[in-house]
Amino acid sequence: MKLTVPAVSLMDGLRKVLNVVNPRSTIPVLSNVLLSAKDNLLTLSTTDLEVSISTSIEANVETEGETTLPARKFGQIVGTLTKGDVTLETDKSLTTTISCGRAVFRVMGIEASEFPRETGFQEDRRLELAAVDFGKTLKKIAYAVSMDRTRYVLNGILLSINEGNFTSVATDGRRLAVVEKVIDGIDQSMDGDVILPIKVVTELQKLLEEEGRVEIRLSESRASFTVSNSEISSKLVEGKYPNYRQVIPGSFKNSVIIPREAFSEVLNRVSVVVTDSGASIKFDLSKDSLKLSASSSDVGEASEPVEVSYQGDPLTIALNPGFLREPLRNLECDELTMRFNDEFKPIALLGDEGFLYVIMPMRN
Amino acid sequence: MKLTVPAVSLMDGLRKVLNVVNPRSTIPVLSNVLLSAKDNLLTLSTTDLEVSISTSIEANVETEGETTLPARKFGQIVGTLTKGDVTLETDKSLTTTISCGRAVFRVMGIEASEFPRETGFQEDRRLELAAVDFGKTLKKIAYAVSMDRTRYVLNGILLSINEGNFTSVATDGRRLAVVEKVIDGIDQSMDGDVILPIKVVTELQKLLEEEGRVEIRLSESRASFTVSNSEISSKLVEGKYPNYRQVIPGSFKNSVIIPREAFSEVLNRVSVVVTDSGASIKFDLSKDSLKLSASSSDVGEASEPVEVSYQGDPLTIALNPGFLREPLRNLECDELTMRFNDEFKPIALLGDEGFLYVIMPMRN
Repeated sequence: MKLTVPAVSLMDGLRKVLNVVNPRSTIPVLSNVLLSAKDNLLTLSTTDLEVSISTSIEANVETEGETTLPARKFGQIVGTLTKGDVTLETDKSLTTTISCGRAVFRVMGIEASEFPRETGFQEDRRLELAAVDFGKTLKKIAYAVSMDRTRYVLNGILLSINEGNFTSVATDGRRLAVVEKVIDGIDQSMDGDVILPIKVVTELQKLLEEEGRVEIRLSESRASFTVSNSEISSKLVEGKYPNYRQVIPGSFKNSVIIPREAFSEVLNRVSVVVTDSGASIKFDLSKDSLKLSASSSDVGEASEPVEVSYQGDPLTIALNPGFLREPLRNLECDELTMRFNDEFKPIALLGDEGFLYVIMPMRN
Repeated sequence: MKLTVPAVSLMDGLRKVLNVVNPRSTIPVLSNVLLSAKDNLLTLSTTDLEVSISTSIEANVETEGETTLPARKFGQIVGTLTKGDVTLETDKSLTTTISCGRAVFRVMGIEASEFPRETGFQEDRRLELAAVDFGKTLKKIAYAVSMDRTRYVLNGILLSINEGNFTSVATDGRRLAVVEKVIDGIDQSMDGDVILPIKVVTELQKLLEEEGRVEIRLSESRASFTVSNSEISSKLVEGKYPNYRQVIPGSFKNSVIIPREAFSEVLNRVSVVVTDSGASIKFDLSKDSLKLSASSSDVGEASEPVEVSYQGDPLTIALNPGFLREPLRNLECDELTMRFNDEFKPIALLGDEGFLYVIMPMRN
């Protein structure tokens, strides 16, 4: 293998694939990145056997071929090469010479044939979405995924297609985040659910920052996402996602419209006095006013009102500030609608573009 | 105590003093910041009993007085107040009400009389320097201080005044960093040595970023530094600093002038293949060329030349790359002079403004 590629595009490509590498892998080749040079493209691929990612960059390929190089070290070396072209040349003893300007590195690789390849999977279903839109949907819900490794199905997000509705769901059992959208031109043959592991969601979000379309291909056990010159694929989480719809109250007695940024600032200020992660913030609703307050025995107390438009009965609800901060940070809309029945029943937050968030009040 | 102060200047003041607070202190009042309001100034003070720091900011003082507040929490609260004026009002039960806009906090304090005060020390010696210059001097040597807690005197930097020469020294026993300057208008009564603990050096560097003069006052056991409205004082390290001058070779056989930035870039690139912190980089000097190279059994090898002007005999020296990176990063001059005798004897690096750095070559 021999090729020349601009240092900047090689680094950009490596950044996309390096995070998938598991640095604690016991299989040596899984610590490496696969380099494949063909048709004036250099393709970089990594895998942890669950998630696989590859990206192609334009290169001047003199001799086609493949090799693998230690991913982390290769990334560090390329990271020091700030300008100009990089030449990569692999000899028969699996040593790759990396040259850029007057700098020369010689790095030992592992035979490319040892690198585990995915056997091309046959998709059952295939759809296309605007990449940036799908990225925003994932951002609005991904933080709500469970970090408890024993709750296996909740470690992923649910993507559900049902009669043209595309629903994305994450929950850790204490709060639920949903984005529901209607997609045109989808027939009933597309209906079905998949659960995506959070690792692939995190890596996929980076690829979705590019303009253009994302092609989603789904089979019984795998999902694959193609954006521009990059492809990420993953095993699906096995198991049945809980019936999240039963958590969403069928009706609400009252609602209040909240300015997102002002509310977020006040929440951050009032939360400062809270020292225990299980402590709550009190929300006092009265005519045209929402007062936030909190107190802790070791620091003191804080309170601040937010101007809202509210005509209902006075009500005091206690909520976990951490559970509110995350949706506030990941949404972009100017206003949110908070819907509620009383101080004991689930509260819903509604944002733009089909966003729905449900949390339980805390008992004070 | 009751006063009003702009939120921004209160935060600036707190940033200067908060780092001295030891969050693991067993004496409660040492976790607090002392607030003293007098003559339209609010003075913020913290101490860990070794290092004390205070800074004054202009305030609209309605009622003079003092109190203490939990330093970390107070800093977090003020950090959320981004604009406008902050009003602080302390009542008889030691609760301070912090208000800004419509946000109100009530925080419990500890009696100001419990806060340990320094009894004003009588200086033996007193000198003034340009603040920014002294800050640069400290930056050029502070990284070389020993982190080994058992080497007590080497945990500080030596400030030595001798016949108008002002010498600042740091060493960890494996490398030595010195800045020597001539100060005008100093008579022999100023001669003497003090050892400053590294903690005060770190905090002092932040104060020295301001234009103006720093007033240094020294006694047998303490040092005090006043810059603008801030003062930091510290116990001195007791003990005798080793005779560092005997480490500096009296003569050198040869020297080479090195471009600092280009050399630094090449050093960073070549060091990437080094995985062991005890590993060395080879410096091959030959006519008008300095080639850096390194290798490790698990990654591979790297090499790159730097253009230099050198007419002496070819020589190969092995050096610890970490020991070179720090002076290169903390100097500002375009060129360094490297002086040496052979591959076994100490190497000296000379920079601008009296900077001298000595390291031992490694045995390969």
